[in-house]
Amino acid sequence: MACMKFLNSQTIVIAGAGNVGWHLAIALSKAGWNIKNIYSKNIRNAKKLASRVNSIATIDFHEIYSADIIIFCLPDDVLLQKLKTIYIPAGKILLHTSGSLGIDVFNSISVNYGSLYPLQTFKKGNDDLDFSTIPVFVEGSNKKTISILQKLAKSISDSVQQANSQQRLFLHIAAVFACNFSNQMYCLAEEICKKHNIDFQLLVPLILQTAMNTKKILPSLNQTGPAKRKDMAVIGKHLEILSAYPELKDMYSSITNSIFVRNNEDGHA
Amino acid sequence: MACMKFLNSQTIVIAGAGNVGWHLAIALSKAGWNIKNIYSKNIRNAKKLASRVNSIATIDFHEIYSADIIIFCLPDDVLLQKLKTIYIPAGKILLHTSGSLGIDVFNSISVNYGSLYPLQTFKKGNDDLDFSTIPVFVEGSNKKTISILQKLAKSISDSVQQANSQQRLFLHIAAVFACNFSNQMYCLAEEICKKHNIDFQLLVPLILQTAMNTKKILPSLNQTGPAKRKDMAVIGKHLEILSAYPELKDMYSSITNSIFVRNNEDGHA
Repeated sequence: MACMKFLNSQTIVIAGAGNVGWHLAIALSKAGWNIKNIYSKNIRNAKKLASRVNSIATIDFHEIYSADIIIFCLPDDVLLQKLKTIYIPAGKILLHTSGSLGIDVFNSISVNYGSLYPLQTFKKGNDDLDFSTIPVFVEGSNKKTISILQKLAKSISDSVQQANSQQRLFLHIAAVFACNFSNQMYCLAEEICKKHNIDFQLLVPLILQTAMNTKKILPSLNQTGPAKRKDMAVIGKHLEILSAYPELKDMYSSITNSIFVRNNEDGHA
Repeated sequence: MACMKFLNSQTIVIAGAGNVGWHLAIALSKAGWNIKNIYSKNIRNAKKLASRVNSIATIDFHEIYSADIIIFCLPDDVLLQKLKTIYIPAGKILLHTSGSLGIDVFNSISVNYGSLYPLQTFKKGNDDLDFSTIPVFVEGSNKKTISILQKLAKSISDSVQQANSQQRLFLHIAAVFACNFSNQMYCLAEEICKKHNIDFQLLVPLILQTAMNTKKILPSLNQTGPAKRKDMAVIGKHLEILSAYPELKDMYSSITNSIFVRNNEDGHA
């Protein structure tokens, strides 16, 4: 119940004031959690976020010990480095928000550890993100941790799922395709528009419709366009035109082929 | 003004009852146009659409001469074949809806010809498509044709643009990237989910957010994820896991590289 205010005796530190830390801290704060500190190596980032969530900014990594629950929102490699030097007082709960790290990265440091993975694309500037609709995947090392994870996750999201480290890794890969790679397709379209004085905004209704279709029907059943129709005349014309842009041409060929393989069980572009 | 009913003396034939013909006929009919015939080589398709727009189905190609305006919603190669055998009485207006064909394909057949290109992904089943928000691109051979094109287009869409054949071709290529190729990314994500018993619907909020972001900010300024962060540890892990699926691995590498090139000006996955 994301809209309900919790009265939580447990306190939280958010380590990392990047895109994920930003949105997670704000959501937890709105849900009534007491965020004692925001840690970042960049004090300006820490202060900006701390001021949003009534917390105290710090660049002293040892301040993470100030709270009961420590949520790491750091890049994987930074977190792994930090974990080499960490000393954790007994009873602390250590959580990360990584799609790719197992929870066992914590197992020599504490008995209470886990992962809280919100499946969304986060940008600091985007203030109208509705956290309650975001699927949050949780995994914990023991009952105590799972219980607090459920409490944390349910306080900010209406869609809380259990997922083990292996499932989360595949979820993350699927998310890279569904989000970062689809966004890269938009980027390439933007590039083509820019080169030919076309307003990219004219493509937005098409982009939104394509995305919204996934709510009702699996994308594999909803493909359209020249590759799906196997319209070789159009594909040939597009490839000819893209000769001026070899990288775009290669991308066009390989994705067209990927559509062929799945829709016609033969052929290549 | 898509919501306004027009009293139009000119009559229309729609040649083709596929995805584009389906939605265009319905939109024009709703806007008050008299659609005399629906032509399709498949009588069931023609009848289904005709019954929706108070029109008469036909498989006789010569019936296209029954109206003042003939709108071809056929695949490019089918249209080009048909045009070889066509005889058109003087004064008829010939329009196509193709992204890839110039309007000059009509120039030996009539003096009044052009293109009406709605930039959207169309599927017959999708009845809640709002045509008024779809950008429609028009190009005509003379003033008379341009005038009727404007009338037609403005009766169904609030976003009517002029575009010549060359611009439309690049628009179509950009649309393939923005729509068909982004949908293919969703398909690959769906495939990964299926292989690992993950409900694809859990990715939908992520897909929608990524698409909605394009309304506010250019996608090139809005990329996130491991490739954008140049997080080689995560990318390496993903590629390792995808070794079991060589085609997905190749796609992951080439799109990751495409993000690198644009965000870091170096490197490859």
